[in-house]
Formats: sequence, structure tokens, C-alpha cells
Amino acid sequence: MDDGTRATAQGTGPSEGLTREITAEIISIGDELLIGQTVNTNASWIGQQLSMTGIRPVSVRVIGDDRASISKALTEARADAVLITGGLGPTKDDITKQVLCEHFGTRLVRHPSIEQRIVDFFQSIGRDPLEVNRAQADLPETCTVIDNPKGTASGMWFDQGGRVFVSMPGVPYEMKGMMRSQVLPMLVERFAPPLIIHRTVLTTGLGESHLAERIAVWEDSLAEVGIRLAYLPSPGVVKLRLSAYANHDPAEAMARVERKAGELYALIPELIYGEGEERLEQVVGRKLREREESLSLAESCTGGYLSHLITSVPGSSAYYIGGVVSYANAVKMEELGIPSDMLELNGAVSQPVVERMASGVRAALRTTWSVALSGVAGPDGGTPEKPVGTVWIAVAGPDGVHATKVYLPGTRELVIRRSAIAALDLLRRRLLAMG
Amino acid sequence: MDDGTRATAQGTGPSEGLTREITAEIISIGDELLIGQTVNTNASWIGQQLSMTGIRPVSVRVIGDDRASISKALTEARADAVLITGGLGPTKDDITKQVLCEHFGTRLVRHPSIEQRIVDFFQSIGRDPLEVNRAQADLPETCTVIDNPKGTASGMWFDQGGRVFVSMPGVPYEMKGMMRSQVLPMLVERFAPPLIIHRTVLTTGLGESHLAERIAVWEDSLAEVGIRLAYLPSPGVVKLRLSAYANHDPAEAMARVERKAGELYALIPELIYGEGEERLEQVVGRKLREREESLSLAESCTGGYLSHLITSVPGSSAYYIGGVVSYANAVKMEELGIPSDMLELNGAVSQPVVERMASGVRAALRTTWSVALSGVAGPDGGTPEKPVGTVWIAVAGPDGVHATKVYLPGTRELVIRRSAIAALDLLRRRLLAMG
Repeated sequence: MDDGTRATAQGTGPSEGLTREITAEIISIGDELLIGQTVNTNASWIGQQLSMTGIRPVSVRVIGDDRASISKALTEARADAVLITGGLGPTKDDITKQVLCEHFGTRLVRHPSIEQRIVDFFQSIGRDPLEVNRAQADLPETCTVIDNPKGTASGMWFDQGGRVFVSMPGVPYEMKGMMRSQVLPMLVERFAPPLIIHRTVLTTGLGESHLAERIAVWEDSLAEVGIRLAYLPSPGVVKLRLSAYANHDPAEAMARVERKAGELYALIPELIYGEGEERLEQVVGRKLREREESLSLAESCTGGYLSHLITSVPGSSAYYIGGVVSYANAVKMEELGIPSDMLELNGAVSQPVVERMASGVRAALRTTWSVALSGVAGPDGGTPEKPVGTVWIAVAGPDGVHATKVYLPGTRELVIRRSAIAALDLLRRRLLAMG
Repeated sequence: MDDGTRATAQGTGPSEGLTREITAEIISIGDELLIGQTVNTNASWIGQQLSMTGIRPVSVRVIGDDRASISKALTEARADAVLITGGLGPTKDDITKQVLCEHFGTRLVRHPSIEQRIVDFFQSIGRDPLEVNRAQADLPETCTVIDNPKGTASGMWFDQGGRVFVSMPGVPYEMKGMMRSQVLPMLVERFAPPLIIHRTVLTTGLGESHLAERIAVWEDSLAEVGIRLAYLPSPGVVKLRLSAYANHDPAEAMARVERKAGELYALIPELIYGEGEERLEQVVGRKLREREESLSLAESCTGGYLSHLITSVPGSSAYYIGGVVSYANAVKMEELGIPSDMLELNGAVSQPVVERMASGVRAALRTTWSVALSGVAGPDGGTPEKPVGTVWIAVAGPDGVHATKVYLPGTRELVIRRSAIAALDLLRRRLLAMG
């Protein structure tokens, strides 16, 4: 029944107080996108960047790598800014560039400085460029060339009839580099879109609908101060993005957002773990590093996923010592010193066992903190008393061992992800409580 | 420099011998897609399904949740089949359905049997449906209703002016259920697209370009028998998809594909680990289960990721006993019995240490097999002798311990993923060699 309407209805950003909205259309060229070999993450990334910049994406069009489709898409574009990706590789170069030349009534000319860069690039990898490689320096005479420091296909900027068309390569990191360093600043200069102030508050511990209930009154108060709220949910985490138009006074808008964010912190202090793009494992890692403390893990149902999250952070070896994945009961007994009668009496998914797992690994690896998980990830193994999604989590530290039972039903993958996030959050709260 | 041209140029599927190609257009409705809050995975999944069915996707269009955009997209659609997703949630229901009614000159009528299903659904979760929920049973009079067993928004099928329009909800699992059980079979019946035989062979151990070199002669021989090849690369794995049109004789086409697949098996036997959608961790798990053997792990650079891969397979507790994540050297010494002078002399990323890790965890957990990894995941910690991406992998089993050094440079995430895949493949080969 959840069709994302909440995020949709509230996520389109503010639109009050505008003289004229600046619109954008994204054209993605590539057969591999049409047949689903590649997911069109370029379009979502560009859509995000544009809407954060105050430009409203009104359409995405994915088309094949052929002259007729590209020409039709250019002719039908009606937005202020038309951002095109793909169709610029050395082998297909000619089609997109030729169509651009025809559309804008110009011709290709070779740019010696760009040709030299291509030659240099190939020599740096010990090869001689072919003519098809050199031909990437052929660019439409009337366009503004956009440098591509990460590849050999240059971008092209056309400003004609009140509209801007930008053509960029489809390789994500090349496109992103060009967007960040050149295209977005050029679009802001060209169209002067209204400045938007964004602030993203990261929460965990409550699902989207329960969180919405909890902050309903606060949320209702946002409209009158011109702030919009977007819920951005992912497994275990809900991001809350506040947005406000600046209307010639960025400081005033920032103060408005700051005040409402402050109210949110007062309302749900225990649910907020950070801001912006930060991940919970980074927050926990930073706190451990600041405190010069160490961590070990004993995982059962999460099977190494929590350890993977923690070690995905560069530099985590400064505080993460190691862990045990105790998938079979024998490992729980031998490596973590859990008596067999305790396992028999309570079952592996129980408070005494998870507490002993945590204190066992903490003692064995001599760490400041340890976290242990034992639960039913499914799809099999659930019982009426302990259905799939039942997970015991224990945190052991200088102030003792504390265990919590959570119920996070879902697919095996979701149970694993959500219980790892829940465990990280319990550790975060314990670290906070230590002052 | 890799712009995906290989996959693109060879991935569009065969098109010879067609009388008339059946084309499709995908229309995705949703503001959340335009502003990049949600990645449009629906469109790629539908594109995949259509092209596997012999229908060619020629365009994807993402539009906002408003009357004008939806109406324009319907009017401009030119393909044989137009598949629309989104815009059918209980709150926005009216817009998409009203626009469909206007476009096809019909009106909404309530379907009592669908209304009853909605009432039943709400009662099953202990709630009474509101009128907006009941209104989901209002559907255009002239459409064929498509059941949605997984939700309350029905699908709609319009066949008018030689074109088929299908409207489906945007929730991925609801849409996929409807596509699989009803829409794809109905499209096949309506348009009788040419039958395509597909076969996907899964390889690991060689990157895309080296693999392409290795099978170049075989690849060149495919065209003359009407078979197309697509390279579908992901970290550590390259899928090779062979496709052939059946042209009224499926058995002949299957035999043709079978023969060429057989040649591929003879050419790169050691690189092929499976077919279809199977993952390497499933292949290894199946072999261990068949042999009634067990596995343990000792991970350093992969930090628990390999354990996570193995335990992501339901039922893995039948063969996976557990593991140790030895992130600090102290854990390597204490838990795995590695002498400190061995670590000092060789460094943690070395053959003797990784071999001792494997035999240590195998002895401690008394498993048939064990796998150990020790490497430099980066971004820091690389040296001229052991740059980032240098990984030692050891497999210990009844036939002894064998270690291999691999060099898999890339981002931290990529080093972790690719070395876990490489370790699984080494274990797979050892299991094969045991007969």
C-alpha cells in the first residue's frame, strides 16, 4: 500500500514566491538504457543536482543511439535547459555531434589543443591514438566547449533561441565532474535560478509513517514559514530534507531553516544521528576515534554484514579490532565461551546468549566496546514465539552489557540490513550516554 | 575511456529476418523520479522484460504527476505498446485515471468485485477503508482491468487505434507481479512478437576486455548463425548473453544456441561458473551442500563482506559454520594462532600469513574447507611492493592449503567486492577439482 506518495507529494520542493520557474529536460541517449542493461542513474543524479540548484526537472527522455531519435528529441525540447548525456564515445561520436551540428546550423572543426590532450592521454597509457580518437577533438564551431578532465569526449554548450542545450558523455564520473565544475555554475550564471537553502537531518529508529505521526504538528507548522519537507526513506533510515527559497536574502532563509531544524532536534533528539550525507557507521566510527576507544563484533543473523558496514569506512582499522561470525552454535560455544546448557535452555536467539556473545568477544579481543546480534533472518526458522525478524542485540562496554529485542520483519536481506542499522544505533546511543 | 560501447553495440539484440518489429514506449509518472529521489529501476526492468520477449523498447519518458504532462505523453506516444507506471496511488488516483478516460473517451465506473477486495484487504489489517480507498475500484468503462494481487490499484489495458496502452501502479513488486502474470502474456498474444531464445553464461576470472580478446574468434563466428552476444559486466563477473530469433522453429534456434554455448564451454571451461541468474555464492553453497561439507572464513581486507555474501543465501547455515574477521594483527595472532614473528617478518599481506589464517580457522572451527583473505583495500596503506588492490587468498581443505596473490585495483569498495568474488571462485575451482 505504500506507493511513496508521501515522499512524492512533499518532495518536489518549494515553489512559492517565484517570478518564473526555470525548467530543465534531461535527454539520455543509449540503447543499453532502453533495454535495461544499464539503470539510468545519470538522470536521477542530474535531477537531484538541478532541483537542489533551484532548476525544476520537468521531463526525462531516454532514446536510442540513432539519428532520427536524437534529432526528434532536440526539436521537441521545450525546457529552458536541455541536458543531454551519452552518444559521445569514440565509435558513435559522429551521430550525436552531426545531429547537433544540423540542429544548430553549424559544422565540426578540429580543436588543436583538445587533440593534443587526447594524444597526451594515449601516450600516458603507452598507446598511439587512432584517427577515431583524434576525431574526438572535432567539435561544433558555434558551441562553447566544456572540458572533460577525466576523459577524451568534450562537452558542448549551445545557447540558442532562449534555450541552453548541453551535451555530455554518458560515463557517470566524467559527466558528474563536468556538471559539478562547469555546467551547474554556468546554468546558475545563465538563468539565475532562485537560491534554495537545503538541510538534511538523518534519523533512525522509527519507520516513515510512525516518524510522520510523531512530528506531524511540527510538519504542519513549516508551510507558514515557507519551508518544505521531503521524507527520503531507505532501510533503517529516514532522511528529512528541509528546503526554503532564499528570495534575495540567503541569511534570512538560513535562519528560518535553522530555527525549524532546531525545533526538530528538540522534538526527536534520540532519533537524529547526523546531517547531510553521513552514514551511521561513519558517525559511530568518528565517535570511537575521538574517544580513542575500540570495537569488536559477534554476529549471528547478520552474518558479517555489520562488520562489512564498519570496515567499508576508510581508516576503520583505527578502532575496529575484529569480530566473530558465529553462524553455528558450536562457534558460539567455543569461540565466545557460551555454555551449551545456556543455548539449550534459551535458544540461540535470546537475551542471555546475545549478552554472553557480546561480553565474550569483548573479553577475547580486549576492546572497549562490543556489539552482538542473534536473530531469525529467515525465510525459514521462524516460530510463533520468535518469528522471522526477531533479533536480539547486545552492546557491552565499560558500563556493562545491555540487550534489546527488536522486531524488524521483511525479506532476509531487509532483516539483515535493518538489524545491522539498529545495532549501530544502539552503540551510538551508548557512546552518547557516556558523555 | 570505457563508455560501455561494447555492451551497447552488441546488446541491442538481433533484428534480422523480421517482417515488422514490435515497438514499445515506457512512460514513468512521478515527481520523485524527476528530482532523483527515486531511481527509475521500473523502466530498466520493463525494458529488459520487453526485449527478452522480442518487443523493442524505443523510448522511455519520465514525466511529472500532472494532468498536462500525462495527457501530452499519451497523445505523443507512437509505439505499438505503451506501458505506463505510476500515478495510481489512492491520493493521486483521479489525475491519471481521469486523463486516461479523457484520452480514450470513456468514464469511470465502480467495479463491485474490486471494491469488495479492497474492503477485505483493509479488514485483514484491522482497518476500515476510507472513500478514497474504495474509489480505487473506479475504473474506465472501456478498459480491460488487470488484477493486482499485491495491492489495491488495478491495472488498465486499452486497445485502441492499433496501439495498446497499459497503466500499472509504480510500486515495483506490484508492477512486476502484474507484468509477469498478465501483461507480458497478453502482449505476446496481441502482437505475436518473434520468439527469441536467450541463454546467459556466467563467467568470472577475466575482465571484459581480456575476455573479449580470448573469445574473439568464437564471437566472430556468431553472426553467420544469427546469434548475437551481449557482455553484461559487474564487479568481478561478466555475463555473456546469447540471443537468437526463433523464426517459427524454436527447436532449431535452441539447437543453434546450444551448439555455440557448447563451443564457449570448451573454450573457457575454467571461467564459467553457472548460467542464468545464479550467483557465485549460490553455486559454491550448492556444491558444499551436495558434498555435505562445511566452510569457515578468516577475513582481513574484506572485513566480513565474504561472510555476508555467503550468508545472504537462504539455508547457508547448512554448510557455513562461521568465521573470524581479523582486522587487527592481534586478532590474527590470538584467534588464528599466527606467530608474531611471522607477521613481523612477512607483513600481514603475505603468503605465509594468509595460509596460516586459513589453516588456523579451519582447525579452530573443524570445517572441511576454509578461505582466508589478507590484502590492501585502500585508500591508504599501499606501498610500492604491495599497492592498493594487492590481495592474498588462501583456500585450505582436505588436499592442503594453497595461496594465490591477485591484484585487483580500484576503490576500496571495488577491491573488497572483487577480492570476495575471486576467493569464492578459487574455492569453487578447488571443489570442482575434488571431483
